[in-house]
Amino acid sequence: MATVDAEPYGFDFEIPTTALLMIDFQRDFVYPGGFGEALGNDTSPLLKALPPAERVLKACRAAGMFVIHTREGHRPDLSDLPPAKKVRGRGKITIGDVGPMGRILVRGELGHDIVEEVYPIDGEPVVDKPGKGAFYATELTDVLEKYGIENLLVCGVTTEVCVNTTVREANDRGYRCVVLADGCASYFPEFHEMGLKMIKAQGGIFGWVSNSAAVLQALSPEIPLIAAAGGLR
Amino acid sequence: MATVDAEPYGFDFEIPTTALLMIDFQRDFVYPGGFGEALGNDTSPLLKALPPAERVLKACRAAGMFVIHTREGHRPDLSDLPPAKKVRGRGKITIGDVGPMGRILVRGELGHDIVEEVYPIDGEPVVDKPGKGAFYATELTDVLEKYGIENLLVCGVTTEVCVNTTVREANDRGYRCVVLADGCASYFPEFHEMGLKMIKAQGGIFGWVSNSAAVLQALSPEIPLIAAAGGLR
Repeated sequence: MATVDAEPYGFDFEIPTTALLMIDFQRDFVYPGGFGEALGNDTSPLLKALPPAERVLKACRAAGMFVIHTREGHRPDLSDLPPAKKVRGRGKITIGDVGPMGRILVRGELGHDIVEEVYPIDGEPVVDKPGKGAFYATELTDVLEKYGIENLLVCGVTTEVCVNTTVREANDRGYRCVVLADGCASYFPEFHEMGLKMIKAQGGIFGWVSNSAAVLQALSPEIPLIAAAGGLR
Repeated sequence: MATVDAEPYGFDFEIPTTALLMIDFQRDFVYPGGFGEALGNDTSPLLKALPPAERVLKACRAAGMFVIHTREGHRPDLSDLPPAKKVRGRGKITIGDVGPMGRILVRGELGHDIVEEVYPIDGEPVVDKPGKGAFYATELTDVLEKYGIENLLVCGVTTEVCVNTTVREANDRGYRCVVLADGCASYFPEFHEMGLKMIKAQGGIFGWVSNSAAVLQALSPEIPLIAAAGGLR
């Protein structure tokens, strides 16, 4: 049994029943020219989640923990794109249109794929989802059940949209989630802060909040905390 | 076609394809002695959502709009209660225990039922849900499809928990949601404000935000706005 220092209290887990869930680290959100920018956002704040998320990913792989990645996006024929989603933002460029990284938020395009720093390796399922939540219209429940997963360590973007929606879905289904604050990011600092605060409020109504250093410490208790936070690249 | 003045822009709807969704106006959340208080909250801030929600409910009924209510709770044998949810808050009194309004968050108990002000009438489905989201493990999707609903006017408690989770689920499924700010409430003013702000941000990433007076105006355009806001009891 490992324990991650977390709020509202320590998060206990065992590696065989725990997965690292890496949510939507796609070029379309993290880099200019994708869906995030099409919605009017400055994408640069998302970049700061990558180094902590990469450290956690490597440590989880080294510890033999199961890793799952998600990507938001749609089929090339857009048959899984709700009409309301297509027109919502009233942007000049929207889902399915051609941008500098290919068609916006379309599976198979450069912009839709995951950035190099946290790219999936063999044996790590990539769950493609049409919505913000990773449980709706996906195989995620089946994957978690097949591997006997009960706990999720969560990194991803953005904190208040896809991370929060997925954690809420997971929590309703009985999964225990700990969200790593510095392994997540938002286009809006206040939404990042409040998205995390909503999760851990009321005794942890949606789950726990921790950070990358605490997870590295829990996975390798012999490594001093300061070294773990800066050195495990 | 009616239009509700809303953010980020006007919300168009037609009554036959629109439902009013009343989320979790249960004694267990709104009054002392229930689940809300067991989680450590002062329940009194929730009471202020009741008068606006009641006005909207009556106006929607008068306009012939379909109305759906939800309740969070569990079977008396607690077979649908995830173990993680039972123990999460570490409270002295938790789900299934006996409180002054009966067993906490258990179906059939006084505390689990909806308060008088917005009590369902014949023809209004009541969807019982084991989680925060009204789509998980419920018949809500089937009900919406059966009645051809495409748009949801949303009132309920609490803003950042069950309202936000349900709106996120609905949005992923292609339903257009407008959340009525004064018809919702939270135990925490900052979560109420931020929960609404997250919904309407980025061009309305989860939906729209409006208020009770704007809905009354849209349903009865001949009634002056001030009269509608105060008089339709």
